[in-house]
Amino acid sequence: MQGPFYRKTVTTFDFENYLKGKQQEVNAALEKLWKDVVAPPTPLIPAMRYSLLAGGKRLRPILCIAGCEAAGGSQADVMPVACALELVHTYSLIHDDLPAMDDDDLRRGKPTCHKEFDEATAVLAGDALLTAAFETIAAAGCDQRGDALKWLEVIHLVARAAGYSGMVQGQMMDISSGKEITLEELDTIYLLKTGALIEASVQAGAILGGGGSGEINALGAYGRKIGLAFQIVDDILDVEGKTEIIGKPVGSDQAHEKATGHSLMGREQAKARANELIDSALQELSLFGAKGEPLVALARYIVNRRR
Amino acid sequence: MQGPFYRKTVTTFDFENYLKGKQQEVNAALEKLWKDVVAPPTPLIPAMRYSLLAGGKRLRPILCIAGCEAAGGSQADVMPVACALELVHTYSLIHDDLPAMDDDDLRRGKPTCHKEFDEATAVLAGDALLTAAFETIAAAGCDQRGDALKWLEVIHLVARAAGYSGMVQGQMMDISSGKEITLEELDTIYLLKTGALIEASVQAGAILGGGGSGEINALGAYGRKIGLAFQIVDDILDVEGKTEIIGKPVGSDQAHEKATGHSLMGREQAKARANELIDSALQELSLFGAKGEPLVALARYIVNRRR
Repeated sequence: MQGPFYRKTVTTFDFENYLKGKQQEVNAALEKLWKDVVAPPTPLIPAMRYSLLAGGKRLRPILCIAGCEAAGGSQADVMPVACALELVHTYSLIHDDLPAMDDDDLRRGKPTCHKEFDEATAVLAGDALLTAAFETIAAAGCDQRGDALKWLEVIHLVARAAGYSGMVQGQMMDISSGKEITLEELDTIYLLKTGALIEASVQAGAILGGGGSGEINALGAYGRKIGLAFQIVDDILDVEGKTEIIGKPVGSDQAHEKATGHSLMGREQAKARANELIDSALQELSLFGAKGEPLVALARYIVNRRR
Repeated sequence: MQGPFYRKTVTTFDFENYLKGKQQEVNAALEKLWKDVVAPPTPLIPAMRYSLLAGGKRLRPILCIAGCEAAGGSQADVMPVACALELVHTYSLIHDDLPAMDDDDLRRGKPTCHKEFDEATAVLAGDALLTAAFETIAAAGCDQRGDALKWLEVIHLVARAAGYSGMVQGQMMDISSGKEITLEELDTIYLLKTGALIEASVQAGAILGGGGSGEINALGAYGRKIGLAFQIVDDILDVEGKTEIIGKPVGSDQAHEKATGHSLMGREQAKARANELIDSALQELSLFGAKGEPLVALARYIVNRRR
């Protein structure tokens, strides 16, 4: 096992408690979704909840909340959007794990959705989670009534980040790519597949938190950089980690003969690059002062995490 | 070949021209989507456009436009929503045709998306079409600015109709059902799988066309009834039709050992039921007078169509 490779700096901000607290609050909000819905007795909602509640890091919801709070808003303003981002993320994991795609049997240490249920149910559970994301945001926007245009902007932002010009396109490039790929192309894949939704998460929070365009743009740049760093660290963990810790078979990318940042530039250079990206991301936060502390800590967490 | 079984009534409204004209206008709007988008050279957008432009009836977009015009709005107000409804419908066809679901090789007389491309591309093209539907509505709402809350309501309506309490749930029930099913359960499947999105199509048009709640409710009831009739007629066509005309293998439901209205109540009774539903749907249109003529004709078309 490698230790954390990003240097530690002294801060009074208790990130461990912050992270745990936010994860619990997000999990509580997710847990409530469709719990008491009266629905036909099919495995659809059980499969949606199975994958959603399988214990992720909740990074996108927490970035959304942190973005909102940095811009002056409160958590309650964006919790439905935070949940929606996790729904989008979960749907993408379910579909990426399908036999026709990455064909993974384990996710977050548990059988993937199509292994626990079946392939048809997994396709539909993913579809329903994606649809529910937009239903959730729209419902909250209709309830809130105050500033409907901002909610429309958030839906537009999330959809653009998730679709053919963002996450889905990134996954398409990823599965079509082989070993013959440049570092630049790999960056594009990472920015689309992971960076776009992370960027949208922070920005959606900032929009609903009442941020001005300067703040929203700064958080967008921050999000893109930490998103890219996140994926680079994922590569490293894929090679270094142990199955029990990261919850998916180690070296699964290598087994599939995919190029990764790790294989293209070597581990040490990949780590250095992740650190540079985080440094650069932190500079984007200068506008926010103490209100940006959670975002600073989240950026560092992204490179220090072990899974 | 059977002739049309719904009785003809005299009207001065030229439905054939209306339908052709609307189909051309909807097709022109769909044709423009992502035509000039600068995107990575993956098959994602080609696959999305392949299935979208494979020549459907455009029933949902036209019902949306007709609902809008009946409520006093104009086609330009809702064309983005009309397109979005066809994106949702097309995504559902792509995913329903997958090997893990209905495993169909032909759709609208052409190879299905996963046959023309591959399975992974088909999953992602469906995902991207669904996401693009919400992006399209949100973008139009942001541009229009006038009444953002109505656009949020439309997104909520479409998402609810498409997801776990509508279309996706209907498909889930459909693939889990066998021959042991009651007519009541079959109605539920049809109402969820087909009725919900058709209902939302007409209602979304009415909302953006400025309809009052009485009009919106009446069009909802109309939509549910014609949606159910549509699916009953589909069953009949599945048995009666010829592959060249309906564009998918005849009797594919029978081959899969699924119960259909046709197999549960017999052809003549199924036809009578479709006609009753259409009669009842037409009564919902009394509010609209001459403005409802296209909706009257569309309801009749649904039972008279041969594919």
